[in-house]
Amino acid sequence: MATHTERPGAGLGPFFHARSIAVVGASDDITKIGGRPVYMLRKHGYAGAVYPVNPKGGTVQGMTAYASVRDTPTAPELAILAVPAAATPAALRDCAARGVKAAIVLSSGFGELGAEGAAMQAELVDIARQHGMRILGPNCLGTVNVADRMIGSFSISLEEYMPLPGGVGIVSQSGNVGSHTMNTVARRGLGVSQFMATGNEADVDVADGIAALAEDEATRIILCCMETCRHGERLVAALELARSRGKPVIVLKVGSTEQGQAAAASHTGALTGSDAVIDAVFRRHGALRVRSVEELIDIGHAASILMPGRLPQRDAVTVMAASGGFGVMMADAMSQAGLRLPALDTKTCERIRHVLPMAGTGNPVDATAQMSSRPDILQKLLSALLEDPSGSALVMFMSLSLYNSRLRGVYLEALARVREAHPERALMIVSQGPADAVAQINALGIPVFPSIDAAASGLAGLVRLGQLAGRPASAARRPVPEEAVDPAVFRNEYEAKRVLAAAGIDVPQEAVVRSVEEAVRAAEGIGYPVVMKIVSADIPHKTEAGGVALNLRSAAAVRDAYGTIAASVARHAPQARVEGMLVAPMVKGGVEMIAGISRDPVFGPVVMVGMGGIHAEVLKDVAVQAAPVSEDEALAMIRSLRMFALLDGARGQPKADIRAAARCVARLSEFACRHAAGIAEIDMNPILVRPEGEGAVVLDALMIPAAPATPAH
Amino acid sequence: MATHTERPGAGLGPFFHARSIAVVGASDDITKIGGRPVYMLRKHGYAGAVYPVNPKGGTVQGMTAYASVRDTPTAPELAILAVPAAATPAALRDCAARGVKAAIVLSSGFGELGAEGAAMQAELVDIARQHGMRILGPNCLGTVNVADRMIGSFSISLEEYMPLPGGVGIVSQSGNVGSHTMNTVARRGLGVSQFMATGNEADVDVADGIAALAEDEATRIILCCMETCRHGERLVAALELARSRGKPVIVLKVGSTEQGQAAAASHTGALTGSDAVIDAVFRRHGALRVRSVEELIDIGHAASILMPGRLPQRDAVTVMAASGGFGVMMADAMSQAGLRLPALDTKTCERIRHVLPMAGTGNPVDATAQMSSRPDILQKLLSALLEDPSGSALVMFMSLSLYNSRLRGVYLEALARVREAHPERALMIVSQGPADAVAQINALGIPVFPSIDAAASGLAGLVRLGQLAGRPASAARRPVPEEAVDPAVFRNEYEAKRVLAAAGIDVPQEAVVRSVEEAVRAAEGIGYPVVMKIVSADIPHKTEAGGVALNLRSAAAVRDAYGTIAASVARHAPQARVEGMLVAPMVKGGVEMIAGISRDPVFGPVVMVGMGGIHAEVLKDVAVQAAPVSEDEALAMIRSLRMFALLDGARGQPKADIRAAARCVARLSEFACRHAAGIAEIDMNPILVRPEGEGAVVLDALMIPAAPATPAH
Repeated sequence: MATHTERPGAGLGPFFHARSIAVVGASDDITKIGGRPVYMLRKHGYAGAVYPVNPKGGTVQGMTAYASVRDTPTAPELAILAVPAAATPAALRDCAARGVKAAIVLSSGFGELGAEGAAMQAELVDIARQHGMRILGPNCLGTVNVADRMIGSFSISLEEYMPLPGGVGIVSQSGNVGSHTMNTVARRGLGVSQFMATGNEADVDVADGIAALAEDEATRIILCCMETCRHGERLVAALELARSRGKPVIVLKVGSTEQGQAAAASHTGALTGSDAVIDAVFRRHGALRVRSVEELIDIGHAASILMPGRLPQRDAVTVMAASGGFGVMMADAMSQAGLRLPALDTKTCERIRHVLPMAGTGNPVDATAQMSSRPDILQKLLSALLEDPSGSALVMFMSLSLYNSRLRGVYLEALARVREAHPERALMIVSQGPADAVAQINALGIPVFPSIDAAASGLAGLVRLGQLAGRPASAARRPVPEEAVDPAVFRNEYEAKRVLAAAGIDVPQEAVVRSVEEAVRAAEGIGYPVVMKIVSADIPHKTEAGGVALNLRSAAAVRDAYGTIAASVARHAPQARVEGMLVAPMVKGGVEMIAGISRDPVFGPVVMVGMGGIHAEVLKDVAVQAAPVSEDEALAMIRSLRMFALLDGARGQPKADIRAAARCVARLSEFACRHAAGIAEIDMNPILVRPEGEGAVVLDALMIPAAPATPAH
Repeated sequence: MATHTERPGAGLGPFFHARSIAVVGASDDITKIGGRPVYMLRKHGYAGAVYPVNPKGGTVQGMTAYASVRDTPTAPELAILAVPAAATPAALRDCAARGVKAAIVLSSGFGELGAEGAAMQAELVDIARQHGMRILGPNCLGTVNVADRMIGSFSISLEEYMPLPGGVGIVSQSGNVGSHTMNTVARRGLGVSQFMATGNEADVDVADGIAALAEDEATRIILCCMETCRHGERLVAALELARSRGKPVIVLKVGSTEQGQAAAASHTGALTGSDAVIDAVFRRHGALRVRSVEELIDIGHAASILMPGRLPQRDAVTVMAASGGFGVMMADAMSQAGLRLPALDTKTCERIRHVLPMAGTGNPVDATAQMSSRPDILQKLLSALLEDPSGSALVMFMSLSLYNSRLRGVYLEALARVREAHPERALMIVSQGPADAVAQINALGIPVFPSIDAAASGLAGLVRLGQLAGRPASAARRPVPEEAVDPAVFRNEYEAKRVLAAAGIDVPQEAVVRSVEEAVRAAEGIGYPVVMKIVSADIPHKTEAGGVALNLRSAAAVRDAYGTIAASVARHAPQARVEGMLVAPMVKGGVEMIAGISRDPVFGPVVMVGMGGIHAEVLKDVAVQAAPVSEDEALAMIRSLRMFALLDGARGQPKADIRAAARCVARLSEFACRHAAGIAEIDMNPILVRPEGEGAVVLDALMIPAAPATPAH
């Protein structure tokens, strides 16, 4: 993998705006990857110069062909390489020699095929680096700038059909997924600005693409499909750039790779999937993650129609149908998608009943089949609902009515009037066509979803986009200076907690003792009751080894326990090197949580927080985020836990001090960043979160050194 | 609501097969509900007699009209009533006098509008009962028998377009949802047998409709949309009838009414939603429940294409795409839908690489763009996958390829050849059209889903249908004879547990005592350690009142505790009538569960089982089923709990005796049926489920009498 030092998007101009293009490996056969770009550049009317390059010279598709890129009349601003993998490095060297600054390598047969291909791919990167050249691919579907008819791609979907120019930008790692998206968006009558498919990402990656689209004037919204994220910081920078330019990013991330997780040594590592991390990163940096290519297109389409200014910002919706059955289905789907369905205002209900006395004025509104009897009736109903003080978005179900010509006339007239009267409000339709009627409704600025479920998840997504649009960019991540770590922290829980305490995290007052009398003295100092625990790096599971005694209420009990623990440990783990015994106060009363740090291969230290014990393990009820996190971010993570009710006064318990828990998590996350080079993983388990105002205290902690292993003894 | 004594489906013949139909309220205006049936019966070529009835006489739509149904040339076999609500009872009386045995009341303005309408609706039922007549509706969309062009409906979707005759039967409470389903099914080129929309269900209900379709020869699959189930037993009988006739039932149940639940007095009642109960009933009686009308249609459509004989029975799938990206999306969606993706056999991989050396032979199979280069290549790939020994279903992603005429030719030829070579195997396609290409593929016996998600949930549903098809009807529910209940069981936990013990449920050996010395004697008999609990119907929360002492290890401790409890209870609940103290063994070691009985308004006693304490309450991690359940059914309920891992040896704990827990639940469910008249709700909380072989013991129990309240003292 190449190391990127430039900011994402730098040097990508020629991929979209080249005024001259060499197609290396140009062919007369337009079904070949060296033939189709030449064919499509000419067919769709690219205004720049096209230089077919073919060692045989002569002509290609009727144009003069050049034996080498060194022979072209001018230095091309962009080269498209469509020669076999083995011939690609030489072709790229020719380009470099000719002063080409950007090359698209369409050919496959590189890193995706194994070691030999990867070596060739690395060679391409070396050549590019030496000559200050950017390369897209290899094994990619290239780029398209629709307005300029600049096609650096062999996508078969462009063979017959070119999208209209417009505001949707598409960047995808997979060429097939990207071109499917472009094609579907175009078939729905929506305009496309630029397209980029990054393939193997030897150099240019999805983050570059997002950044380039963020800076592109024509692009208003960015649809992104990614499989692997290779550079966490660059992705974050690109997302923040798009946010600062007011361009929503909708991401379909496929393939939840769980690499590195199997080998995790801590609880935290085992509980922190890399998919959950990227999910959290997208959320924090303003991108909307979707779960399917249909959702990507549906929401992207709807957002384009509603932008600027009409994206719903409240999570409230009113639903209306000509039937109770579909109304209830819509209400169910909307609330499952997390939207509220507020009751209508009394005046709104009166207005509806004035128009249609038999209508049901709940939410869902049952407007009966009468709603489509006359355009003025439907218009009055819709106006009443859009003027309801709840300010909800409005979703109307249409079944197959648009297939009936009389009903189609009623609907279109009513919608046109309503749109004119309420240009600023979010109104959406559920309908399955026909396509030309849907296009007419879209042209009114009204999104149409193909199903109730699509409308529900779509509206929920649009609300999130609307809320993100209204929010300032997240505070820049404060870089945390790195510090060396004292290797003692890996030795035992006492040392681990000692450094956590120095980082501002509450731990019990405790002591390591090496004799019975030391233990009693420590206990007297701490105050009864106390707990005692064996201290040994060789005994990870203290309870199982008989190495723990709880609730010791007197000097006698401490003496007793000392002997019992020593004997039990000697029996269970005769080889273990024992450093002493820990004496600590017996802390009770509160809810147990866990928190920790694991190492993500892309995003570095990741902080995790969850409910304690069985809940984290069996339910995987944890929240994660790339470190560091602020106290407020940590609080939001805690509130997102499914078992949050346990902290919030369930079963008549007092509310827990979640503010203190959040502070503890935030400080842990900063600590982890400060020691990112030395500490790979941290478990704080359990953290006792006490009633409000009483704090949160870490009762046990474990740290795992980053490789190369720091000696543990 | 009418009480039904007949078996579901009885007497419904004329609704589908009438040879003469009177339309009462017939109109010249075909947009009116009295005009459209007359128009459509004639337009679509109904062969029977149509008698328009209108008090003005004369003609209707060119046909002789009769002033009253008493004047028609013969007694019509079916009457369609389309007069205003207030005129309907008189019209129905006329029909009864004429000897009509079946009437469809299309008119609205009855029970759906409140008390006055409900009274008129009841009047209709009275008239029908008196004359042995069945009525469908009121406020309904009636019936259609497609093959006979018999249209007892005013569905606007039939105004222009009639479905082809075929095997899909549709029964829906909501007319709009039903006609949307019929219309969509028909637009996809699938044939329909019969349609019934039941509306207010004054008499005929969805269970009747399912039973009628089960007995209809043309119907091969039943699509059902229901909102309210009014008669649990009749629904179960109809589902079992369909199962015995080999006809899959796919149900969309909308509107999860939680009626009666707010008032529940027990934990069980609060945790048992009626939606979960009907879900469990559908599952037990072989119906497939779906979550959206799209799923209903997609799965119904696919099942029709695959039946008989090609419904997949294994939960295994191989997915193939021309791109890695879509392959991974398919794999993700399939595993989220609960399907397995087994690795391909080595020979299969060799066969694939022989055809396409660059193909990825994992599962997903990445067949690269080359897969569509020639029909013989695609055919060889598909054959290799269908002959893989895993016997998996095969799903192929096509993106928008069918829009490209060259690719369309390749796909269709390859699919035709493969279908011929493997007529028995389940092969499915994901494609978004165009519609005529999809119809061609369907005609080959290959279902096409519009999206990856639809294919995943669709295949999962088809597998369930395939498995149900291969399974014998569920054992008939053994009727449990009712017995009176001893009112003492409501008095306290001791009495409640005593009768549970008599029903074969394990409870601790325990005693109620009324003095310190009795307490000590009881403890000595039981053996230390013991627990003591206050016994008083006035103290539901014993712990909060200081009424519980645990882990008493000696006579002295028992004496102490007796005094402490008595004092504490006197302070906390000075008015409480105390019946004594319970002495019981201190049982430890095991996992806490809960089980109980609540009363469903439709299905009667419902049994619930869940994890103990906080898990049931905060996570609602419970399973429910209409009582009684067998031990095996109870075991399946326990295994379905999200926290089942807690019972199955999570965290190194021994496996719990789930067989004993299941026995306890099954016996509870029988006990509840036996005492259904007297006991409304039962909580067994906690049940301590001990390690395997050591049983499950109910530590506390509470019973709530059925109204009218049995005196608790």
